[in-house]
Amino acid sequence: MAYPKLPSRSENFAEWYNQVVLRAELADYAPVRGCMVVRPYGWALWENIQKALDARFKATGHQNAAFPLLIPLSFFEKEKEHVEGFAPELAVVTHGGGKKLEEPLAVRPTSETIIGYMWSKWIRSYRDLPMLLNQWGNVVRWELRTKLFLRTLEFYWQEGHTAHATRAEAEEETLRMLRVYEDFAVNEAAIPVIPGQKSESEKFAGAVHTYTIEAMMGDTKALQAGTSHFLGQNFARAFDIQFLDRDNQMKYVWTTSWGLSTRFIGAIIMVHGDDQGLVLPPRLAPIQVVIVPIWRDDAQQSQVLEVARRLHAALASRFRVHLDDRDHVTPGFKFNDWEMRGVPVRVEIGPRDIAQQVAVLARRDIPGKAGRQTAPWEGLPERVADLLDEIHANMLRKATAFRDAHIQRPDSYAALGEAVQQGWALAGWCGRAECEARIKADFKATNRCLPFEAHRPAEAPDRCIVCGEPARHWAFFAKAY
Amino acid sequence: MAYPKLPSRSENFAEWYNQVVLRAELADYAPVRGCMVVRPYGWALWENIQKALDARFKATGHQNAAFPLLIPLSFFEKEKEHVEGFAPELAVVTHGGGKKLEEPLAVRPTSETIIGYMWSKWIRSYRDLPMLLNQWGNVVRWELRTKLFLRTLEFYWQEGHTAHATRAEAEEETLRMLRVYEDFAVNEAAIPVIPGQKSESEKFAGAVHTYTIEAMMGDTKALQAGTSHFLGQNFARAFDIQFLDRDNQMKYVWTTSWGLSTRFIGAIIMVHGDDQGLVLPPRLAPIQVVIVPIWRDDAQQSQVLEVARRLHAALASRFRVHLDDRDHVTPGFKFNDWEMRGVPVRVEIGPRDIAQQVAVLARRDIPGKAGRQTAPWEGLPERVADLLDEIHANMLRKATAFRDAHIQRPDSYAALGEAVQQGWALAGWCGRAECEARIKADFKATNRCLPFEAHRPAEAPDRCIVCGEPARHWAFFAKAY
Repeated sequence: MAYPKLPSRSENFAEWYNQVVLRAELADYAPVRGCMVVRPYGWALWENIQKALDARFKATGHQNAAFPLLIPLSFFEKEKEHVEGFAPELAVVTHGGGKKLEEPLAVRPTSETIIGYMWSKWIRSYRDLPMLLNQWGNVVRWELRTKLFLRTLEFYWQEGHTAHATRAEAEEETLRMLRVYEDFAVNEAAIPVIPGQKSESEKFAGAVHTYTIEAMMGDTKALQAGTSHFLGQNFARAFDIQFLDRDNQMKYVWTTSWGLSTRFIGAIIMVHGDDQGLVLPPRLAPIQVVIVPIWRDDAQQSQVLEVARRLHAALASRFRVHLDDRDHVTPGFKFNDWEMRGVPVRVEIGPRDIAQQVAVLARRDIPGKAGRQTAPWEGLPERVADLLDEIHANMLRKATAFRDAHIQRPDSYAALGEAVQQGWALAGWCGRAECEARIKADFKATNRCLPFEAHRPAEAPDRCIVCGEPARHWAFFAKAY
Repeated sequence: MAYPKLPSRSENFAEWYNQVVLRAELADYAPVRGCMVVRPYGWALWENIQKALDARFKATGHQNAAFPLLIPLSFFEKEKEHVEGFAPELAVVTHGGGKKLEEPLAVRPTSETIIGYMWSKWIRSYRDLPMLLNQWGNVVRWELRTKLFLRTLEFYWQEGHTAHATRAEAEEETLRMLRVYEDFAVNEAAIPVIPGQKSESEKFAGAVHTYTIEAMMGDTKALQAGTSHFLGQNFARAFDIQFLDRDNQMKYVWTTSWGLSTRFIGAIIMVHGDDQGLVLPPRLAPIQVVIVPIWRDDAQQSQVLEVARRLHAALASRFRVHLDDRDHVTPGFKFNDWEMRGVPVRVEIGPRDIAQQVAVLARRDIPGKAGRQTAPWEGLPERVADLLDEIHANMLRKATAFRDAHIQRPDSYAALGEAVQQGWALAGWCGRAECEARIKADFKATNRCLPFEAHRPAEAPDRCIVCGEPARHWAFFAKAY
């Protein structure tokens, strides 16, 4: 009993990705085109992502709520850019309870409109502000080209929605939540991200500004891993959300929205995975430590299992541990199986280890002998805790080094074309949509973001890499998911 | 600034209920008929329900997963009784991405069909069994008469779905999960429930048997608070879910499903609430303790607030505590406000209390002076912990006494008719649907359940209360939500 080998990442990254998702049992294809089933291992990963984010949202004063799935179609007409962006992607309910509905209902693709409608009823005074809400849920967008986790008709996400008395407060909130995403990506998922602003052509339909965290995948493509939108008063005006301010004037609120979705699981797979399969970041991994007992005969089996259970008990209060006591597959099969599933630490325990009161710790992020060490039973939990931290740090270091090695600063339009075949290009840009469009047409690369200060050269950009006019921004161009 | 008084429960229970839900900001009406918005206070209550149940599901070996919202309509045709039960309630998506779909899609009303379809792909061998899954999510049923939490077009729930190698194992699972619901209701929500089996006419569409926990509301109506279904091989045959057993034979699996929804919030409101508003069970309350500082002038304000903050810090590591430091409403307003929102314990702190290093603890379940006590700051967390436990026990005791006082054992059909105007009737029943139908037609009461042993008389029932033929079961008849 053995799995056929995975395709290698260098040969066929797309096929490697699909196979990893299916074989690791993260997700499967649903019977409806473009929909997915998130299987228990994938959902446990999402639950850990939820916990890490939800704690950050609550620490910054947000509360969860639940708004309806079904939204009157007419709501989308109220904000001009929003309807242009979302109308082509809507799934529409036309019948309910055996009858044709008077007004068709959209299955929500995002909830700015329905939340705006409710806010117009709830918000009366400056005392009701800021309104800091978040929703965990599912949304549907009728996408044509789909891929498990990365782009599915239905996906799971959180969408934060906030309303404020002043523009400054709303802008501050927009950036605060982008920083929350950045902190989460780096410190929980070991994914280095570049925060920045989206250009006009790439921003959210209905936003004044969109901010993004962009991550580089293992094939050097970019993935937008989370976004935060400053919506100005666009939705406030569309849904008439006014409040009586301290100065006794009626004013429109300023709103924001921000979201991170199950796409992020795709980023985890593609940033960290290797030819053996998943490599999961320790702080999010559903199983952080797997214990594999090794025996040759029945007498050894009962002795080894007894010790394995003791080690499991010693570790289980601090870590998510699994003891693989299956007796119909070999230890070698188990090693491959858990490597494919990306478990950060494997604890091997056999008769010889027992004689010495030790176990072997093998780390997933460093394959082979270099990643193996012997550890005494005494103090094992502390050793494992340190090891998980080291693995996190090493994964982050590796991903950062890989990304930085694949960013170029081309000095000509032709060089930009070359650069985006092998990674990202950081270049000056005049700010005009025509120049972005030309890059897209010529090289299939898009403007990923105008990076914040920490991620761009100290000097101002000189010329637009496309038209040669004076540059207004530094911008990252790359092929993207 | 004061709220108009709530309608009293005895005058107009239905209106009292609606007003409590809206004023306590648990939920609001959505723009689509029959849909609701669950507001932060209501959602925090649901999150606590989720946590309490999810821990129990995981402790009994279940894993969470996520199956698609959209299900091909044809899936519902595969199980005859299931389609009859659900076809009239479906919301149907006919258009996606601006085009008419080839096959219309149902928004899931429940997920037996889609999960059955996936299981037929995943389950191969006895080693894949039992398959123990649960899903937290939203479902849509096109109901005609709706009421916040109790019956809404979209609602939130968990649906457990399990597959087993043998009938006995599946039946055991069905009852195990009913017991989990019972334990949750009693020990988390302080709601006494009667577990039992549904009659044929009341069971789930597609089930062999349905088990239920039934609770009595404050108006004596019954509410089905959670159900667990033994599905036999009905869905296994409809979706061809077969496995190779140990004996090398291909066999159909045996499946179960079980669910508990946001309806349960309705039960919490209607079991425990009083004329002042909500009374929330301490283990589920979003805010367990509210601290209300009392001052007359600015000097007092800063002194009192400082102490209030210290008490808050002392309590916050063990309880969900809120310090109400609003300075534009009076302490009296705050008392009413938090009473209406059902917070179990109120801590009052004013200048005189500070002089004596004490605080006043007021319990929500016992109004007025009898529920107030003075407690020293020293040891306050322990005192509050004990008090929360006492409140839980008292709420359960009160609800049990109320229920038991409103159960009668009528000795004639006429007496049954009387009994269900004032509570529940426990009576012998022959087992025939005609007799149930007659009770429904004559008295608007339904067969709630055939209670398990602990909740029925020791002796066998004599005659059917309707037809006088020999009785086969004890049954509870009641008006119900």
